[in-house]
Amino acid sequence: MTAMDERRTSNRAVIALDAMGGDQAPEVVVAGAVSAAGPDIKVILTGRTEEIERCLTGVDEEKRRHLEVVDAPDVIGFDEEPAKAVRGKPRSSLVAAVETVAQGRAGGIVSAGSTGATMAASLIKLRRLKGLKRPGLCVVIPTPGKPTVFIDVGANSEVRPAHLLEFANMASIFASEVLDISDPSVGLVSIGEESIKGNELVLEAHQLLAASPTLNFYGNIEGHDIVNNLVDVVVTDGFTGNVCLKLMEGTSLVVIEEIKKAARKGIASKLGGLLLKRNLGELKESIDPEVYSGAYLLGVRGLVVVCHGNSSSKAIANAVRITARAVEHEVVGRIGDRIASLARTSP
Amino acid sequence: MTAMDERRTSNRAVIALDAMGGDQAPEVVVAGAVSAAGPDIKVILTGRTEEIERCLTGVDEEKRRHLEVVDAPDVIGFDEEPAKAVRGKPRSSLVAAVETVAQGRAGGIVSAGSTGATMAASLIKLRRLKGLKRPGLCVVIPTPGKPTVFIDVGANSEVRPAHLLEFANMASIFASEVLDISDPSVGLVSIGEESIKGNELVLEAHQLLAASPTLNFYGNIEGHDIVNNLVDVVVTDGFTGNVCLKLMEGTSLVVIEEIKKAARKGIASKLGGLLLKRNLGELKESIDPEVYSGAYLLGVRGLVVVCHGNSSSKAIANAVRITARAVEHEVVGRIGDRIASLARTSP
Repeated sequence: MTAMDERRTSNRAVIALDAMGGDQAPEVVVAGAVSAAGPDIKVILTGRTEEIERCLTGVDEEKRRHLEVVDAPDVIGFDEEPAKAVRGKPRSSLVAAVETVAQGRAGGIVSAGSTGATMAASLIKLRRLKGLKRPGLCVVIPTPGKPTVFIDVGANSEVRPAHLLEFANMASIFASEVLDISDPSVGLVSIGEESIKGNELVLEAHQLLAASPTLNFYGNIEGHDIVNNLVDVVVTDGFTGNVCLKLMEGTSLVVIEEIKKAARKGIASKLGGLLLKRNLGELKESIDPEVYSGAYLLGVRGLVVVCHGNSSSKAIANAVRITARAVEHEVVGRIGDRIASLARTSP
Repeated sequence: MTAMDERRTSNRAVIALDAMGGDQAPEVVVAGAVSAAGPDIKVILTGRTEEIERCLTGVDEEKRRHLEVVDAPDVIGFDEEPAKAVRGKPRSSLVAAVETVAQGRAGGIVSAGSTGATMAASLIKLRRLKGLKRPGLCVVIPTPGKPTVFIDVGANSEVRPAHLLEFANMASIFASEVLDISDPSVGLVSIGEESIKGNELVLEAHQLLAASPTLNFYGNIEGHDIVNNLVDVVVTDGFTGNVCLKLMEGTSLVVIEEIKKAARKGIASKLGGLLLKRNLGELKESIDPEVYSGAYLLGVRGLVVVCHGNSSSKAIANAVRITARAVEHEVVGRIGDRIASLARTSP
């Protein structure tokens, strides 16, 4: 190995990928790994070696140097009870992937398997950052103009104001480091813009966020502002966030379906629909938040990314690249520092 | 014959309309009243008599017989503090309209003025139904196929499980009587379909709704199911409901805007967009939940309907017609009976 190779090796991000997680695993997942792996990104594939190797047939030597396979014979299914499955299947592809992060061999993990199991494995095997009360799950919404980071989309269905302060800080770091948004503005989801509008949780959280010297706090925002590009980071509890994420996806699909129906009405519209067809397809893909790049669990010692079960190899590759970027930018370390400073100043 | 007798014995519904509420009041509001009034619907217009009469110039004698003007010189603006404005302006068009309902002269009130003030006036001037804990605000979402009733969209930002049980019952009656949906199915918004998924509020409410003999309870639904037509009635707290309502509207508009942008890319798409233009405009109007028919406050003694400030005369007329239908079908009385029976059986 030359000196150049060594430097590259030490500088590059290592990402663990659960090769058996997802509707079309391992084929589609391995294809995503092959696409993303390279001099800057090493991918550790965990799962059934034989099946993975079969998917790697024909991949050239140079590419293979950036791929490693770790054998893990078990698979956790979508219908298994998360915590129980994680504890009962230590030799599953998911647990093996999380272990590589726990051992410090990889900086992040990507899985298109069961969301619940991935979250459970991460929370059990990777410790929380020192001083952190609650990890949060964020997604990147592809709002027109520039993307928006939305946290928490389901890690915590019951939260306290101090948790929202943590979410706001973690997502701000993610937005600036991973999405290159400088000094990201933060909006708190409520039912009116005024600081006196909202439920008890929001009223208290508003005060905390407004007083935080580390945040660029915009103030309260309303439902439509989540997709309006009014702020860079949108903060809410995991119940509201989860319902909103799925509603956004559902509404987008219903509107696109209705437009397709409208396009079948009358000859002029029919022709119009045909001419627009390709662009509509692209749009449908671009606004599906789960296709964009998965959901990111922030607050544990390692970056954890959950992709949709039916992710394409392109989506998997994108998730691996974004995770690698987060690892290169030391997002976990930066979040750790921020949380430590929050913990020092909070009562 | 007393006013009350007149309302009961005549076959038609009497609706009070705040003629001065709305961005283009009184012109657009009065035009809506003229359109809706007829042998089956009498409209009482409250506001500045002179201005209203000017808008009625040219309306024929026959139509005029179904319209009444009640003078009210004051107007409550959109930026006034609701409860204070209602108490400070007893001679405002809004308070006058609510008074006609409180006096039994009208069965319902429609206003396109300040939502907060209309809610405040109704809660102050119209008593709650006997045994009811919390009135709820619902809207009709024009989901493809058949409409969905969504409650609570903002009357209560902090609720208890028993309130959700009341919302479910009130909205079920609204769905069956006003929208002709027989034995409407009810879904409870949560973060997973299983009865064990959700926050504390939802977990407890799920048990209450499942045990209710008066409801056709489907179970938990997720965010996307709000627009999927999975159930006829969607129940949630006023915080989540308000955020979701605005997010639905915002997402629809963003998607339509993006489609318009897509339609400007390349000649084929551009032509396609032009050919589709008219249908897109119609769609935009049909999916805006606030344009559909306003928000209905259920649980007070009289039906209260809040329309969007920029409602067209067509939207105002629709709201008057739907309110009249609710009055004819004795929605308030039926809700009162249901609430009384709930109150008897609840602990």
